[in-house]
Amino acid sequence: MAELQQEVEVNHEALANFLRESNLQAFREEFLELHPYDQGQFYLALLPEERMNMYHYLSPKELGDMFEALEEDQESIEIYLEEMDSKYAADMLGSMFADNAVDILNQLDKSRVAGYLSMMDAENANEIKALLHYEDETAGAIMTTEFVSIVANQTVKSAMIILKEAAKEAETIYYIYVVDREEHLLGVISLRDLIIHEDDMLIEDIMNDRIVSVNVADDQVNVAKTIRDYNFLAVPVIDFEEHLLGIITVDDIIDVIDEEATSDYSGLAGVNVEEVTENPIKAASKRLPWLITLLFLGMSTATLISHYETLLSEASILAVFISLITGTAGNAGTQSLAVAVRRLAIKDENEMNFGHMLISEILTGLVTGFVTGFTIMFVVGIWKTNFMLGFVIGMAMFFAITVATVAGSLIPMLMDKLGFDPAVASGPFITTMSDLTSVLIYFNIASLFMSSFM
Amino acid sequence: MAELQQEVEVNHEALANFLRESNLQAFREEFLELHPYDQGQFYLALLPEERMNMYHYLSPKELGDMFEALEEDQESIEIYLEEMDSKYAADMLGSMFADNAVDILNQLDKSRVAGYLSMMDAENANEIKALLHYEDETAGAIMTTEFVSIVANQTVKSAMIILKEAAKEAETIYYIYVVDREEHLLGVISLRDLIIHEDDMLIEDIMNDRIVSVNVADDQVNVAKTIRDYNFLAVPVIDFEEHLLGIITVDDIIDVIDEEATSDYSGLAGVNVEEVTENPIKAASKRLPWLITLLFLGMSTATLISHYETLLSEASILAVFISLITGTAGNAGTQSLAVAVRRLAIKDENEMNFGHMLISEILTGLVTGFVTGFTIMFVVGIWKTNFMLGFVIGMAMFFAITVATVAGSLIPMLMDKLGFDPAVASGPFITTMSDLTSVLIYFNIASLFMSSFM
Repeated sequence: MAELQQEVEVNHEALANFLRESNLQAFREEFLELHPYDQGQFYLALLPEERMNMYHYLSPKELGDMFEALEEDQESIEIYLEEMDSKYAADMLGSMFADNAVDILNQLDKSRVAGYLSMMDAENANEIKALLHYEDETAGAIMTTEFVSIVANQTVKSAMIILKEAAKEAETIYYIYVVDREEHLLGVISLRDLIIHEDDMLIEDIMNDRIVSVNVADDQVNVAKTIRDYNFLAVPVIDFEEHLLGIITVDDIIDVIDEEATSDYSGLAGVNVEEVTENPIKAASKRLPWLITLLFLGMSTATLISHYETLLSEASILAVFISLITGTAGNAGTQSLAVAVRRLAIKDENEMNFGHMLISEILTGLVTGFVTGFTIMFVVGIWKTNFMLGFVIGMAMFFAITVATVAGSLIPMLMDKLGFDPAVASGPFITTMSDLTSVLIYFNIASLFMSSFM
Repeated sequence: MAELQQEVEVNHEALANFLRESNLQAFREEFLELHPYDQGQFYLALLPEERMNMYHYLSPKELGDMFEALEEDQESIEIYLEEMDSKYAADMLGSMFADNAVDILNQLDKSRVAGYLSMMDAENANEIKALLHYEDETAGAIMTTEFVSIVANQTVKSAMIILKEAAKEAETIYYIYVVDREEHLLGVISLRDLIIHEDDMLIEDIMNDRIVSVNVADDQVNVAKTIRDYNFLAVPVIDFEEHLLGIITVDDIIDVIDEEATSDYSGLAGVNVEEVTENPIKAASKRLPWLITLLFLGMSTATLISHYETLLSEASILAVFISLITGTAGNAGTQSLAVAVRRLAIKDENEMNFGHMLISEILTGLVTGFVTGFTIMFVVGIWKTNFMLGFVIGMAMFFAITVATVAGSLIPMLMDKLGFDPAVASGPFITTMSDLTSVLIYFNIASLFMSSFM
C-alpha cells in the first residue's frame, strides 16, 4: 500500500510538470490512465492557472468523467465552473450521468442553471430538467435515468446484444429492467443470471418478477434502507402507476448514508461537523450561532436559580450540587435522545406504537433515576455525614433523571410526527431543557425539606 | 409501495399457514420465491416450534441463503443455531459465503466454533479457518475468498467460459481479477469491459493494471473509504507480497459504514444506541454503567465547589451562574470534540499536522470564548445592573470556553495517537472534564474580583 501510494504521488509530480511544460501529449496519456477519483485528487491540488491549462487539454467529456468522482463543497464547485468557458462547462455537465450533473446544478443559483441548460445538447438538457423537478432528498432527486430496459418477449441472446450497445451510456449494466410497452416495470434480471442461462431462453421465463422497488417520492433514507437490507447494487424507482422512471445505484446510497450519519452526529453535537476548516474565524463562526442561542436558553436556568438566591444564601451547601444534578440529568436525557433518534431512523413508522413506547420510556427513566438517586443518596450522606441532605439530593436526582429521560425520548418523537428531522441540533437543546427542569425540581424539594437537613 | 408492502405481508400469513398445516410442497414453493431478506423477516417473526418445522423443510444450503441476509444480535443467533441439529447447522454455515459464516462464528464461543468446523465439509472448513485468523475490524476479517481470478494470457471468450462456471460460487462476478502463477495480483477487468470487447481479444491487453487494492491488515474504515471514494463494487485484498487473498464487496462496506457511524454516535451520547429494546430493565441496564461512572466523575466537580462554600455563602449570587458557565463550556467542548472526531475519521494520517491543528484550535477557542464572554458580560451587567459582576462572569466564560474547546479537540487526537478509538464515550467525558475546569476558573476569578462586585 505504501508503495502504491508513492507511485501515485510520483504521477502527480510528473503530471504537474507536463502541464507546466505544456506537454499536451504526455499529460493526456498519463492523466487519462488514472482513475477518476485520482484525477480529481490531482485537480484539487492545482493552482487556478494550472487548472485553466487542463480545460484546454481535456475534452468536456473527459473532464466530466473526473467531475463524477469529485465531491466538493458549493464554494469550490462554483469557482471551478466559473473558470471554464460557459459552453465548455455546459458540455461537461451534459456529458455527466444526469444524477451527478443534477447534484452539481442544485448547488448553483437558478439563472446560472438555466444558462447552462440552454447551451447544452437538447437530449442531455431534457434528462437533467426531468430530474431537477424532484424535491431534495427524495428518490427522484438522487435517481439516474441512464439504465438498461428491455421487453420480456425476447431471448437471452438478443438481450445481450442490446446490453452491449447500452453499456457505454448506462450507469450500471449489472441489472436489466424488464418493461412493457407502456414502460410499466414487470421484472428484473441480473447480468449474472443472463450469462449463466442459455442463449435461446426467453427473458420472461428467467426474469425475477417479485420486484422490490421504491417510489419516486420516497425519502432517500428509505431507499438507503432498501438497498442495505437487500444487498442490492441498484433499485428501480417507479411512479404511482408503476412506470419505471429511473434507478438508484449503491454508490449514491453510500453518500446518502454518510450524509445522514453526519447530520445525526452534527445534531447531537450542536455543530455542523462538515466544517473541517483550519481557519479559526470560519470555524468559530460555524460554532457561535448555536453556542450563543444556547447561552440565552441557559440564561433562563440562571434566572430560575436567581429566584432561589435567598434559599441559597441560607444553605450554600445547595450550590455544591446544582451542576451534579443538572449534569447527570443532562447525560440521561442525551442517552434517551440518542436511542430515540436511532429508533426513529431504523424502524418503519407503522411498526411504532407511540403509547407503548412512552410507557416503556417512563419505566426506563424510573429505573435509571431510582438506581442513580439511591447511589448519590448514600454517597452524599456519607461524605457530608448528613443523610437528610443525601435524601434531598437523591430525590431530586431521581425526579430530574426521570423527567430528562422521558423528555429526551418524547421530543424527537414529537418532532418526527410534526415532520421535522428529529436529529437536528437536538442534543444541546435537550441538555438545556433538562437543566431548567432539574433546577426547578431540585430547589422545590430542597425548600420542602429545608428544616430537616440544615 | 403500500400495495407492495401489503402483498409481502399476505405472503407471510399464507406461508405461516403452510407451516402450521405441514404443507411442505406449498411452503417451499412460496418461501423459495422470496428474496433472502424477506425470508429472514418472515423467519424472525416465527415462534420457536414453527422455526423447528422450517429446519425440516429446507436444506442447509437453502436456509444458509437466508442467513446471509440476516443481521441479528449475538443472543438470537446463538438461540437459532442451538435449535438446529448440529450437523445441519454446520452444513448451513459451510454453504454460506465464507465471510458471512465468519461473521456468525465470531459471535460464538471457541469450543462451539471448533465443533461446527469439525462437522463441516473440509473445503468449506478450510476457507472459514483461513478467515478466522484475522484480527477483528481489519480487511482480512471482512473479506471473502470466493472471487473469480483468471490468468492474463487468454482471450475474452475463454475468460467468459471460466466466468460462467464460477458464477454459482463467487460472491461477485462483476469484477474479475487477473493473477500470475504465484497468485500475484496483476490487473482487474470488469464484466462490463469483458462483454463490450471482441471475443478474440487478449485479457492482458484490455485489463486495467493500475490496481487500487487494500492490505489484509488495513483497518476496515480505510477499506470503506477506498470503496466510497472510487465508487467500487468490490476491492481486492492483498498481502505484503501482493498476493491476492480475497475481495471485499460493497454490501459488506455498507455494514461497516453503518457500524462506524453508530459507534461514533453512541460515543457522543454515552450509550450504545444499538439497544432498541422496549424492555425498561434491559434499557436501563445499558444506560446505567455510563451514567453512574459520570456521576462519580461529577462528584469531583461537587467536591471542588464544596471547597468554595465560604465564598458562596458570602456571595450567593455566584451560585446563579455555575451551571450557565459549566453548561456553555460543555457545549463548546462537545462541538470541538465532534469536529475533531470527524476530522480524524476522514483525513489521512500523514496529512495531519498536530502542531498546526493545535494552534488553529486554540485560536478558534479564543474567538468563540471572546464573543460568548463579551455577550454574557453585557447581559449580566444589564440584568443585575452590576457591570463588575458581568465582567467576572464574562472573563470566566472566556477562559472556560477556550480551555474546553482546546481539550475537546486535543483529547480525541491524543486517544487516536495512543491507538484508542477517539469516539468511544468521549462526549459525556469531555463535558464532565470541562465542568471541573470551568468551576476552577470561575471561582478563582470570582475570588480575585470579590471586593469589586459585591
